Amino acid sequence: MENLILDGRLVAQSVKDSLVDRVKDLSEKGIIPCLATILVGNDPSSATYVKMKGNACEKIGIQSQRIHLPEETTTEELLETIQKLNEDDSVHGILLQHPVPAHIDERKAFESIAIQKDVDGVTSFGYGQTAFGFGKYPSCTPAAIMKILEYYKLPIEGKHAVVVGRSPILGKPVSALLLNENATVTTCHSKTTNLSEIVKLADIVVAAVGKPKFIQGDWIKKGAVVLDAGYNEGNIGDIDYEACCVNASAITPVPGGVGPVTISMLLKHTVDAAEEKAAL
Amino acid sequence: MENLILDGRLVAQSVKDSLVDRVKDLSEKGIIPCLATILVGNDPSSATYVKMKGNACEKIGIQSQRIHLPEETTTEELLETIQKLNEDDSVHGILLQHPVPAHIDERKAFESIAIQKDVDGVTSFGYGQTAFGFGKYPSCTPAAIMKILEYYKLPIEGKHAVVVGRSPILGKPVSALLLNENATVTTCHSKTTNLSEIVKLADIVVAAVGKPKFIQGDWIKKGAVVLDAGYNEGNIGDIDYEACCVNASAITPVPGGVGPVTISMLLKHTVDAAEEKAAL
Repeated sequence: MENLILDGRLVAQSVKDSLVDRVKDLSEKGIIPCLATILVGNDPSSATYVKMKGNACEKIGIQSQRIHLPEETTTEELLETIQKLNEDDSVHGILLQHPVPAHIDERKAFESIAIQKDVDGVTSFGYGQTAFGFGKYPSCTPAAIMKILEYYKLPIEGKHAVVVGRSPILGKPVSALLLNENATVTTCHSKTTNLSEIVKLADIVVAAVGKPKFIQGDWIKKGAVVLDAGYNEGNIGDIDYEACCVNASAITPVPGGVGPVTISMLLKHTVDAAEEKAAL
Repeated sequence: MENLILDGRLVAQSVKDSLVDRVKDLSEKGIIPCLATILVGNDPSSATYVKMKGNACEKIGIQSQRIHLPEETTTEELLETIQKLNEDDSVHGILLQHPVPAHIDERKAFESIAIQKDVDGVTSFGYGQTAFGFGKYPSCTPAAIMKILEYYKLPIEGKHAVVVGRSPILGKPVSALLLNENATVTTCHSKTTNLSEIVKLADIVVAAVGKPKFIQGDWIKKGAVVLDAGYNEGNIGDIDYEACCVNASAITPVPGGVGPVTISMLLKHTVDAAEEKAAL
């Protein structure tokens, strides 16, 4: 089948282009949108991600306040850091890089981020608002998936979307966003017994498993749209890309698919948050 | 097929029985669990529901504080009433009877209920916590459905659950609760194009549509468990009961199915909230 390759770099660029004038308008009011990123410990991939996000901010005129806490940081110390950022008027968004070291209560830390600054969409409160249709900052990867569908004008309403994965920042919110756009949504996971049969029903497949090449080519219905939110070592996604191309009508590559759009959504949410604050 | 009739009255009684000693223990500490109910306007069904809930409270020693506001109440006035109840230390739970008159911003009113007192599970914050697996008070009808499955020891893990309906207090939270118990969950709604085909896949069917006899008998797979959360005029559920009995292995009747358990979950949540507060 002829595939439409869903080029995330084009989508990301269009999102970033839409922010330029907004950042300029804010700066004329003396406001510089600011994203605080918190990295705890020395995980090299996490360090790379945080750096990429910070650099992406600065490229479009968003200030990046980079906080690096040592591996041995306690939950209480992390909560204090977040609390200070919650109260800091110059900070519009807070990103706590996942994962934090195992001794820290990550959920407690996420939950302590003020809803107005939860531009990465990690709090249960933000998730609930998103699921109810009035969330301001859904998780960035789910938001990126929706943006790709919108950019390429791929219809959602009445389609059967199958999401493989149910994490709080990926499977659950992307299921909620697709449901709000009137897809019929099935959420699958490690306890799903007949996964291949269910994926075969899908008009839209979202892979959010975190396992390389997990989604097989013969699970894809002819004409399905396939979105790969996975990113595994060696630039490998959660889908078996070549094999899935056989039946997919449209598909995201890895790299250059969902990833770049995710970062652009983080930038957009940070600018949104700065505008919200300016309007208060 | 021989059906197991899922008798909600038995389930409700077991929930209420489990509360007796807990209410007594609280009363020995000088604490009387208190549910405040707010009825706005003169809808006769709403008045009946609120009365039933209040009476059910009093029967097991929960105090019922009944507030009846006139039809012409403004959103601001309703918010003020809720705010006073949020601040009232003697009130442990707040129930705003749905629907409120059309001129009121119902969502804004729901959202203003303090999370600690949201025993009816209507806030987006409470929903988010429920979906993330640490909510204290899920919406009462979804909680009732889970309680019925638990009481009758009907397995959930690995089953395909199909939920028909996506309201914030029913379809969405019951989908979330089933997912958390490791079902594969499909959420359907008015824009679902091939509803009968999808329901036919279900091991567990939850009808939460609000349309009498909407779910047809020939949509039910042989052996499926069928839960009817609907309640329409004339004691008619959302499923065509007699027709669905042909293939269902277990089924809730209307009346006497989900309804009574819903009220018992409200009582349980109110006692939970009183205990939580006592422990502070």
